[in-house]
Amino acid sequence: LKSGKIEFSPCHEHMCTGPMAGVISPSMLVYVVENQTHGIKCFSNLNEGRGKVLRMGAYSPEVLEKLRWMESTLGPTIKAALEAMGGVDVRAILAKALHMGDDGHNRLDAASVLWTTQLAPYIAKTAKDSATAFETIKFLGDNALSILNPVMAGCKSMTAAAHNIEGSTIVTIMARNGTDFGVKVSGLGDQWFTAQSPIVKALYFPGFTEADACRDIGDSVITETAGIGGFAMATAPALVTFIGGVPKDAINTTLDMYEITHTEHKYFTIPFLDFRGTPTGIDIRKVVEKQIAPRANTGVAHKDPGVGQVGAGVVTLPMSPFEDALVAYADKYGF
Amino acid sequence: LKSGKIEFSPCHEHMCTGPMAGVISPSMLVYVVENQTHGIKCFSNLNEGRGKVLRMGAYSPEVLEKLRWMESTLGPTIKAALEAMGGVDVRAILAKALHMGDDGHNRLDAASVLWTTQLAPYIAKTAKDSATAFETIKFLGDNALSILNPVMAGCKSMTAAAHNIEGSTIVTIMARNGTDFGVKVSGLGDQWFTAQSPIVKALYFPGFTEADACRDIGDSVITETAGIGGFAMATAPALVTFIGGVPKDAINTTLDMYEITHTEHKYFTIPFLDFRGTPTGIDIRKVVEKQIAPRANTGVAHKDPGVGQVGAGVVTLPMSPFEDALVAYADKYGF
Repeated sequence: LKSGKIEFSPCHEHMCTGPMAGVISPSMLVYVVENQTHGIKCFSNLNEGRGKVLRMGAYSPEVLEKLRWMESTLGPTIKAALEAMGGVDVRAILAKALHMGDDGHNRLDAASVLWTTQLAPYIAKTAKDSATAFETIKFLGDNALSILNPVMAGCKSMTAAAHNIEGSTIVTIMARNGTDFGVKVSGLGDQWFTAQSPIVKALYFPGFTEADACRDIGDSVITETAGIGGFAMATAPALVTFIGGVPKDAINTTLDMYEITHTEHKYFTIPFLDFRGTPTGIDIRKVVEKQIAPRANTGVAHKDPGVGQVGAGVVTLPMSPFEDALVAYADKYGF
Repeated sequence: LKSGKIEFSPCHEHMCTGPMAGVISPSMLVYVVENQTHGIKCFSNLNEGRGKVLRMGAYSPEVLEKLRWMESTLGPTIKAALEAMGGVDVRAILAKALHMGDDGHNRLDAASVLWTTQLAPYIAKTAKDSATAFETIKFLGDNALSILNPVMAGCKSMTAAAHNIEGSTIVTIMARNGTDFGVKVSGLGDQWFTAQSPIVKALYFPGFTEADACRDIGDSVITETAGIGGFAMATAPALVTFIGGVPKDAINTTLDMYEITHTEHKYFTIPFLDFRGTPTGIDIRKVVEKQIAPRANTGVAHKDPGVGQVGAGVVTLPMSPFEDALVAYADKYGF
């Protein structure tokens, strides 16, 4: 890396999303998720599961061996199944999962088993042998976040449709990289508005504390940008066992997010709020006027490479990028 | 049947449970569900899915063909997978599913995909060929009630542990057969207390109305007897899209059932009620004193054989069997 021979750029600038460190290299197999209404294709890598995963500086033999298995076995097996079944409707799975206690970001227990259940028969049919079918289905079914990456790409394909609309104050990208938090706004083109990435208020896995935590990291906050995740927490009360707090906090977070969003989602609804649509489309004017920053559900990575996820919680995102964006908006549009 | 050569008796008298008409013949493969704490084994047939299914008088070629496929292919394939994996923990699946919007009776969307996801890798590994693995996994995954039958047998194995306890006023069996509703009470041995089976307040599938409805039918009310189903409705707000009403009705039903039950469940909890245990153990004294009859979530069968399920709803069970049981209790124990 020090040699400068490897070029880096944010996933979002390649229509990609990656959870946590989000490392995607040119040789990796990716999911292709298409917004068919708007003809937008987005991409994500395959979820590696908990424990030791790839990050900058984290490339132990264990990590590399798993990645090689993912490239040689998992990826091609899923690819054959997806081709045989003609693809999966990610939005339909998400809509159903929100009625099954998922928030769509930190809790994807339901979506991941729905995903596994849809893929499994086609994996059994098309895998090169029954041992490969066994290990592929088991890996997908045992990982409660196996659908996270295609969900993120799906969310990006939704928010990307709203980008570059003249005069729009809607946020179309939020992302963090462990150092910075950045925002893009529909009517403000490709400019990033950034601040230092925050520390997450988290419930830590046994043996870890806040002293182990990396600052907030990953592209997965694209889910909140699209109206799910922290914004849909009211539908996921059981999530508090994983991130801390009580079920009422979950409802309050969703209710707060209605204050800063433009609309209620047509497809993603919350049974306990009488099937009200999730708060969708963060409006920088509302964020600044009401001084309510968006909140996200998120995983927490260890500050040192090679350890992996150490907890999960809720993070209040920094206010200044939204304020800076509103100033830039006033400059550009003369309000 | 008219010849009298075929002998009938209730599933419950053979430690069995069957949904709707609940026809189980000696040649059928059954699930074996064991309460390991108490060494009680219960049994259920395999779920046939929606549409045309076996009932008294309903044995069209389509029904028989499916049953033959279930006996020759589905059953043996599931059996091999269950043996390879050493069984499935039905109670653990239920506990998780109650945090995923299932009530455990009428809505088993989550439990059925968890069940399918656990079985699928072992089906892929042990099925006689990949086509058999494909059709078996697909049948389980497409049927939102695929786990209903083992859940019912599991519930029976729980309530059976409470049966025949001297002096106990707890209900250990409730069942309906389309004509009668019957109750057994722990301290009153093998006596049935019965009344006419009620009509269900239901939301009907397109094309059907209450005029098509059979009176309340099936052993599945063993779920309410064990503290889930209608008793756990507060955890399943999305169920109202299937049975009618609004999410508040679901919460109110659960709250009412606390009035007539002995305890709160240790393993089955309701996130939205701050993880309170489900109301468990119907006490005939409380039912009669408060004049609150148990309520059940249930499917509705067509009154004519051969049509299958036509709707789903909530039924308030008749009061008189609980009153009759309390009189019998007073007679027996001299209170």
